[in-house]
Amino acid sequence: MFQHLPGFRDFYPQDCRIRHHLFREMRFCAEQFGFEEYDAPVLEPLELFTTKSGEEIEQQLFGFSDRGGRAVALRPEMTPSLVRMVGAKISSLKKPIRWFSIAEQFRYERPQKGRLRSFFQLNADILGEESIAAEAEIIALGIHTLQKLGLIHEDFHVRLSDRQLWALFLKANGLPPELIPPVLGIIDKMGRERSPTSPAHLAVLAPEISSGAWEELFQRIGQFRSLQDASKLSMFLQGQAVDPYLRSAIGQRLEELELLLSRLEIMGYRAFITLDFSIVRGLAYYTGFIFEFFERQDGTQENPTRALAGGGHYDELFQKFGYSPLPAVGLAIGDVPLLELLSKKEKLPPVAFTRDISLLFDSLEGESSALSDATALRRMGYAITYTLQKGKTISRQLKQMEPGNATWICLYEAELLLEQKVVLRHFANREERILPRENLLRFLSENFPKRVS
Amino acid sequence: MFQHLPGFRDFYPQDCRIRHHLFREMRFCAEQFGFEEYDAPVLEPLELFTTKSGEEIEQQLFGFSDRGGRAVALRPEMTPSLVRMVGAKISSLKKPIRWFSIAEQFRYERPQKGRLRSFFQLNADILGEESIAAEAEIIALGIHTLQKLGLIHEDFHVRLSDRQLWALFLKANGLPPELIPPVLGIIDKMGRERSPTSPAHLAVLAPEISSGAWEELFQRIGQFRSLQDASKLSMFLQGQAVDPYLRSAIGQRLEELELLLSRLEIMGYRAFITLDFSIVRGLAYYTGFIFEFFERQDGTQENPTRALAGGGHYDELFQKFGYSPLPAVGLAIGDVPLLELLSKKEKLPPVAFTRDISLLFDSLEGESSALSDATALRRMGYAITYTLQKGKTISRQLKQMEPGNATWICLYEAELLLEQKVVLRHFANREERILPRENLLRFLSENFPKRVS
Repeated sequence: MFQHLPGFRDFYPQDCRIRHHLFREMRFCAEQFGFEEYDAPVLEPLELFTTKSGEEIEQQLFGFSDRGGRAVALRPEMTPSLVRMVGAKISSLKKPIRWFSIAEQFRYERPQKGRLRSFFQLNADILGEESIAAEAEIIALGIHTLQKLGLIHEDFHVRLSDRQLWALFLKANGLPPELIPPVLGIIDKMGRERSPTSPAHLAVLAPEISSGAWEELFQRIGQFRSLQDASKLSMFLQGQAVDPYLRSAIGQRLEELELLLSRLEIMGYRAFITLDFSIVRGLAYYTGFIFEFFERQDGTQENPTRALAGGGHYDELFQKFGYSPLPAVGLAIGDVPLLELLSKKEKLPPVAFTRDISLLFDSLEGESSALSDATALRRMGYAITYTLQKGKTISRQLKQMEPGNATWICLYEAELLLEQKVVLRHFANREERILPRENLLRFLSENFPKRVS
Repeated sequence: MFQHLPGFRDFYPQDCRIRHHLFREMRFCAEQFGFEEYDAPVLEPLELFTTKSGEEIEQQLFGFSDRGGRAVALRPEMTPSLVRMVGAKISSLKKPIRWFSIAEQFRYERPQKGRLRSFFQLNADILGEESIAAEAEIIALGIHTLQKLGLIHEDFHVRLSDRQLWALFLKANGLPPELIPPVLGIIDKMGRERSPTSPAHLAVLAPEISSGAWEELFQRIGQFRSLQDASKLSMFLQGQAVDPYLRSAIGQRLEELELLLSRLEIMGYRAFITLDFSIVRGLAYYTGFIFEFFERQDGTQENPTRALAGGGHYDELFQKFGYSPLPAVGLAIGDVPLLELLSKKEKLPPVAFTRDISLLFDSLEGESSALSDATALRRMGYAITYTLQKGKTISRQLKQMEPGNATWICLYEAELLLEQKVVLRHFANREERILPRENLLRFLSENFPKRVS
């Protein structure tokens, strides 16, 4: 017997209804914020993802050669395709661009709680706006979407960090610029790996730097990572820098952080934000404020909580792809950890499949009349079902109906049909009326709302 | 600069809105017919598609080895995944099963008009119902869906054929059973290939059969393929068979065809049906009635019309997969030829992106008030936009607005805000009113419908 691949999912109707609910709410919220939907191929040239997304993702690619010998890969993330699409039409697009997609993505990882090899993400990006208004808008969209899905302040928070302050902090501590990305890579893994990180992990990057210097830096990194209070953060960072240029750069950046927080305060979202410099983000291309949405209740070593969403500011990706520079900020909300949390918090609505009207018959005349009415009723907008099987009596069809199978039942009984009459029964309250068949459509249209596509 | 792969598509917002319209109508119609949505992974074990779907599809697979050494492939069609999913839960599913999916599929073909390497399909299947009521229902769903999208009787028709009558015809002409599938394979390509088919194409299958016999069969095949009239069809087929068992089998099958046509007549769809035995269907697993939806106006050799939809009865696939036998009938509507036809017939609706209310401000107080109101208005269900840029005057923001940008405009003018008042303007009719800011939410909620997700 065949089975689906590990880390992939079958969506049986019940699962599909839940997924549809999630996607519908995501789309609704993104459109409320003025974002327009786009989509890109799930299969792209491999090169689009290598060298740009960072090493971790490169090792997780579903890559292969197609029948034409092209190196291709299933997309592990949406941003490179977004940059490619926007880059190609950059001059004709009105800035700032607000685009979103709800799309499947693929990473060859060890399947585990909250993490699969195929998953869906809402991706929303604002492109072409420099000010922190873009960051605030993106974070607000994330919070609004989780709220729309039923999650509240007690359920989740947004851990906010900044790659610029991280870079300034490392510079102030004398780290040469070329070592900043690999050190951030190691910091990103701290707390996410089972074995603790030590100064030795840093020292291998540049053995010419004394182990004492690495140890001191390691300690300071630990201090920085644990700061969650804005004023302490400011004091700590100003204390790191001796160089007046660095001091001023740090001061300016702290002001921008203040601006971002106060904008989120005005928008009513400040209470969701936790400053947390342990957040660095795995993707190599972030250059500014970065954030991850987490369940408030921390996970355990054995059962870690996964980020519900993540994103940040990326400034250099357009240039790396050969286009004019364009400031950008993006958010991704993944479906796997989110559905787990929504299920745990009992926020998934009952998503029953509903049919509007069931037509019941057990004679040839009944069948002909019902089939003909079915087409007319469907054209009006109703959802219609009837048996496809031969020889089932009406009473047996009635017995097999489950609640929710239909709101109305229309009985095409042979005897009544001699007078061109049918019985219409409301399933829930069992109220019945006998109608001339020619009045059925009008009666329903006056008493029962049609579906709208 | 990066480009998407040949045969794949970027969906810019305008394309995405059209796709969304198409998918929404497909989903609406399928649910009207009582079908429930499912989905399966786009990547499946390669084996699922080899040997079952037929040689043509096997040669078009996007197949590769994943990082775990598994032979995998992007799905070229949905049915094998459907059979796998239904097969795994067969005993707990109430029959007949009516399932649909709207899903992306991949075939490595030469990209051309109406045909791409990645395309979307509505797949709808009825499983577990033997009678031709299932075929009628599936064909009705196809016609209803194209009608819902705006196509009419003059635009398209359904070419109906039957693999059973084909097999009986070939048997009656003395063809050994093992030669029936390869001969049907050749017949399927007749008229679809640029170079005409000749008796020689058949003769290579079994050189031990005389070339004269092949030539005679080739001629009769040509006659059968061109019959479009039910009574002539009956006469022709009865004339082929000498064997009384075959005569009776042909007679019975012609009666079933009659039943199917009369059921479609009752449902109001008979005028869409053309008998056409040139239809054989490429997929190897069909065993009964088969059909293809085509634009009525035939294409040319240079510019052939592609089937808009296709499907049929497949009986043996469940057994081939190792499950208990289950009669099945399916329909697939592809997005590429359908969108081309809808565009040609000007049936694609204008799908503008709409925002409900734009908030305009050019002072800090204006911004604070607007941001705070934006959150409240979004919570109520409205789509809200405002500028993210600093220093743009209200009049400049007004000038840059395009029709359709918003239904309402709310002006947060610094002077009026001193009295806690805002100006609300209807964009289209330019009607304006000055409101106390605290009444804004109530006024809108009483005068402008909220969005519903």
